[in-house]
Amino acid sequence: MLSKNKIKFIQALSDKKNRLESRSFLIEGEKMVRELFQSGFNIQTLIISAKFINDPIFAGISSNVEIIEASENELERISTQKTPQGMMAVVSIPDYYFSDKISFSKNLEIALYDIQDPGNLGTIIRTADWFGVNQIVCHKQTVDLFNPKVIQSTMGAIFRVHVKYTDLPQYIAEFRKKNDSKPVIAAVLDGKDIYKTTFLEQGILMMGNESKGLSGELIKLATHKISIPRFGSTVQQTESLNVAVATAIILSELKRKLKS
Amino acid sequence: MLSKNKIKFIQALSDKKNRLESRSFLIEGEKMVRELFQSGFNIQTLIISAKFINDPIFAGISSNVEIIEASENELERISTQKTPQGMMAVVSIPDYYFSDKISFSKNLEIALYDIQDPGNLGTIIRTADWFGVNQIVCHKQTVDLFNPKVIQSTMGAIFRVHVKYTDLPQYIAEFRKKNDSKPVIAAVLDGKDIYKTTFLEQGILMMGNESKGLSGELIKLATHKISIPRFGSTVQQTESLNVAVATAIILSELKRKLKS
Repeated sequence: MLSKNKIKFIQALSDKKNRLESRSFLIEGEKMVRELFQSGFNIQTLIISAKFINDPIFAGISSNVEIIEASENELERISTQKTPQGMMAVVSIPDYYFSDKISFSKNLEIALYDIQDPGNLGTIIRTADWFGVNQIVCHKQTVDLFNPKVIQSTMGAIFRVHVKYTDLPQYIAEFRKKNDSKPVIAAVLDGKDIYKTTFLEQGILMMGNESKGLSGELIKLATHKISIPRFGSTVQQTESLNVAVATAIILSELKRKLKS
Repeated sequence: MLSKNKIKFIQALSDKKNRLESRSFLIEGEKMVRELFQSGFNIQTLIISAKFINDPIFAGISSNVEIIEASENELERISTQKTPQGMMAVVSIPDYYFSDKISFSKNLEIALYDIQDPGNLGTIIRTADWFGVNQIVCHKQTVDLFNPKVIQSTMGAIFRVHVKYTDLPQYIAEFRKKNDSKPVIAAVLDGKDIYKTTFLEQGILMMGNESKGLSGELIKLATHKISIPRFGSTVQQTESLNVAVATAIILSELKRKLKS
């Protein structure tokens, strides 16, 4: 049974301020909890419905983890999803998230400038994972990684991709200083045709905010500007691609060429 | 000012049943309304805040369109968005949506098998528009086109791409019978590497449900099976791509090769 205090504590985790204070976040759903068990993340509490209580994945679990059997009603009260699932976990936010230090990745990394939509950030993390990108650096105003909708859209990739928040122009400037042979690629509307571009499996791909794109400052810091060409028959200036979709198409192109 | 009845009528449009009964749906936001004016869709009512009431786009408007100036408070009451915007419109659902007849497109079209997430459907429509795909055929249980979240994620592409609902296996079977030289491509997990595949600018690309993918029946009806290869370093069976992202990568690949 979940105590009233526990329910209050978990409900409060939908708020960023409370997550940072308690250094905790909520994982929901069977798939996510199973992925959690394969990760190095520190589990504080498991909340499980009767149906799953004897599931083999909980067998060898550390005695430090509190396991609570919860009723449907209790699960509903703490869930942020439409249909609450029978497995949830309170997990510690990893230390790397709080550290000010970021080391540049040896491989391609993604830099995000103030992505606002949680689904977009989560989807970008999921796509990065698919294409073997292990580090994403976000400008400070980007939606929070541990927002429940972000977590859900990562479909487990949150446990594998490092996501850090920093002052992006400063980060990029430092990267340029230390890596003058590596590309810093800006995705813009008037760049070079992505299908005619090849890069090394290194450097940084910068993607901009949903409505404003990248800042002028960041575009100036880029070594290359790229665009995805339109194929529609009529030219409509108003058209654009969703930022998660654009990131996916660019990653697919960069990786495809490296492979072939 | 918006009457009580009008507010009730507009609020009811968030429900599919009411949309079908009244053959109406709601468009929200300045960008969407401006795109609406460039479309052939029939506008019933414009709801505008004082700020926009003298906007030039409303100048030459037909006298059949009812124009209502609404207060912030009224806009808030009818909006489905977090931040209601100063331009909304009640629009007639186009006749093609209700017609049982679907003619096959001469160009590539997309078939969707029971996509559930409104953001995914909207993003697929937006991406299709970008890549010049004008027709999307959805299996009956796919989320409704005029769901407010679908409309918003299309970012205006809803006015340009034809989206129809039908019995998909029946539709594909008929297509195969009439077009035996054109490909029906199934996106699956064990198909041929998309980067090594080329198709004509014709046929149908079939994308499956977020968790279950395509049905066995539909896969059997395909002439080709394709997959997007993973590039991550560790093999995780649990990983997958979001369906809107996968659709975008496949469209980008198909179109790129046709162009080059």
